[in-house]
Amino acid sequence: MMKKVCIIGIGLIGGSLAKAIKKTHQSEIVFGFGRDRTRLEKAQKGNVIDQYSTDIGEALDGANMVIIAIPVGSYESILKEMKPHIAEDMVISDVGSTKVSVIEAVKAVFDGALDNFIPAHPIAGKEKSGFEVSGADLFVNKKVVITPLENNNPESIKMLTKMWKGVGAEVDFMTPQSHDDLLGMTSHLPHMLAFSLVNYLISQHPEASVYAAGGFKDFSRIASGDAIMWRDICLHNRDAIVAHIKGYQESLNVLVDAIDSQNKEQLESLFREAKNTRDSWID
Amino acid sequence: MMKKVCIIGIGLIGGSLAKAIKKTHQSEIVFGFGRDRTRLEKAQKGNVIDQYSTDIGEALDGANMVIIAIPVGSYESILKEMKPHIAEDMVISDVGSTKVSVIEAVKAVFDGALDNFIPAHPIAGKEKSGFEVSGADLFVNKKVVITPLENNNPESIKMLTKMWKGVGAEVDFMTPQSHDDLLGMTSHLPHMLAFSLVNYLISQHPEASVYAAGGFKDFSRIASGDAIMWRDICLHNRDAIVAHIKGYQESLNVLVDAIDSQNKEQLESLFREAKNTRDSWID
Repeated sequence: MMKKVCIIGIGLIGGSLAKAIKKTHQSEIVFGFGRDRTRLEKAQKGNVIDQYSTDIGEALDGANMVIIAIPVGSYESILKEMKPHIAEDMVISDVGSTKVSVIEAVKAVFDGALDNFIPAHPIAGKEKSGFEVSGADLFVNKKVVITPLENNNPESIKMLTKMWKGVGAEVDFMTPQSHDDLLGMTSHLPHMLAFSLVNYLISQHPEASVYAAGGFKDFSRIASGDAIMWRDICLHNRDAIVAHIKGYQESLNVLVDAIDSQNKEQLESLFREAKNTRDSWID
Repeated sequence: MMKKVCIIGIGLIGGSLAKAIKKTHQSEIVFGFGRDRTRLEKAQKGNVIDQYSTDIGEALDGANMVIIAIPVGSYESILKEMKPHIAEDMVISDVGSTKVSVIEAVKAVFDGALDNFIPAHPIAGKEKSGFEVSGADLFVNKKVVITPLENNNPESIKMLTKMWKGVGAEVDFMTPQSHDDLLGMTSHLPHMLAFSLVNYLISQHPEASVYAAGGFKDFSRIASGDAIMWRDICLHNRDAIVAHIKGYQESLNVLVDAIDSQNKEQLESLFREAKNTRDSWID
């Protein structure tokens, strides 16, 4: 059992991880760091975290593991604050949705390398944010992608892997570039499509949602994601997201051409292929 | 109470309507017509319908109300078969997802007009098809859009409205053109986007779904719709669907430009507006 795990940012993901580590008895203390004392106090009273501080030195002091769980746009400033308080044997990781830019932020702050930092990303979420909707089971059977750096200590990687497996996740390893391209496609792209759909509907018909069936509600659910988080993801995975939106638009053009030319066979096969694939994914 | 309601096509919607009419005691007999005797027998054994026939004359004989619940691409052929068996006081309606083309099919078969036919569309569905997934409560609190024709008998419109309200639906009236444009936006467009997303992901990465979070699964749910039904909807609401996809692509281009130019403020406001709108729709 670890003595102290410190979680930087007690939102949906940070709060869920805090609860999960407590539930699986992986640390004597789960410590929360944040900017807003009132929120932290509320999280403590709600048994999300054991202790908290708005002082980064106090938060990191004696921690075996530190998990950064704030929007990726705020990494550089938090890493600068953390820098004087990082102990040599501290395992530092994160839950950010992009990895290449996170590593750049680490390198920028730590003059080329912080060997303690192991980038990671649990693929789990909800459309609501805040620790109020957090849950200890959020990571059960979910993928966590770890994108280790060259100089990471193998023992530290093992510790991080054990922690994630301990909360029920399946751990995969890949390069930061592969992660960003893959997530750009499976997560960032669908979110961009959903945000754009809602914005398009607003522009066309203010009452559109009244005539929307269940499918649309499911589809648009992900358009309720946190605006700051998604702004940062766009800025931090710009190339992959733009490339995937453009690639997607070509798929859409193929469909428009098939509809325009009334190509029955092509339409049927496009829809059948999508249906079969989707059904096989869910089984 | 009606004596006999005949439902043409016992799939998800036809089967659900059959169950709902039985449950709310609106007809002495709910009669099913279809092509496949084995399926109809199964539906009867499952208490979806009371009686059935594969003979259209027998199916329509004595029916007060006939509801067509097959893909819109098959209307013209079924209407031709129905033609010799339609009684003067029979209320005929449908559940098709497009209305302008349905009315054209009616006019083509009936030399300009069939005054008994009142086009309608319940906005309800599931990603699965077949009466096996049907339910008597499918239409509760769902919208049904009726797009009456000039020569429809007001009493017949009342009867149809009463039937739909009887199964729990809210009935709205609009023109066929408004219906097709609105549904092109709120239903057909999201389905086209979801089908295209799945097809794009397949083309990029066969294992993509493994790294997809819950949002993606919700989003892609509607890509499991029936291929024939969606092919027909595309062919029958071509202009509206193509126009909405093109309009949507412009929204997507605005987003791409904001990402490309790293416009933080615009990204945040695009996402915030989508989130606020979406949240207000769901409340």
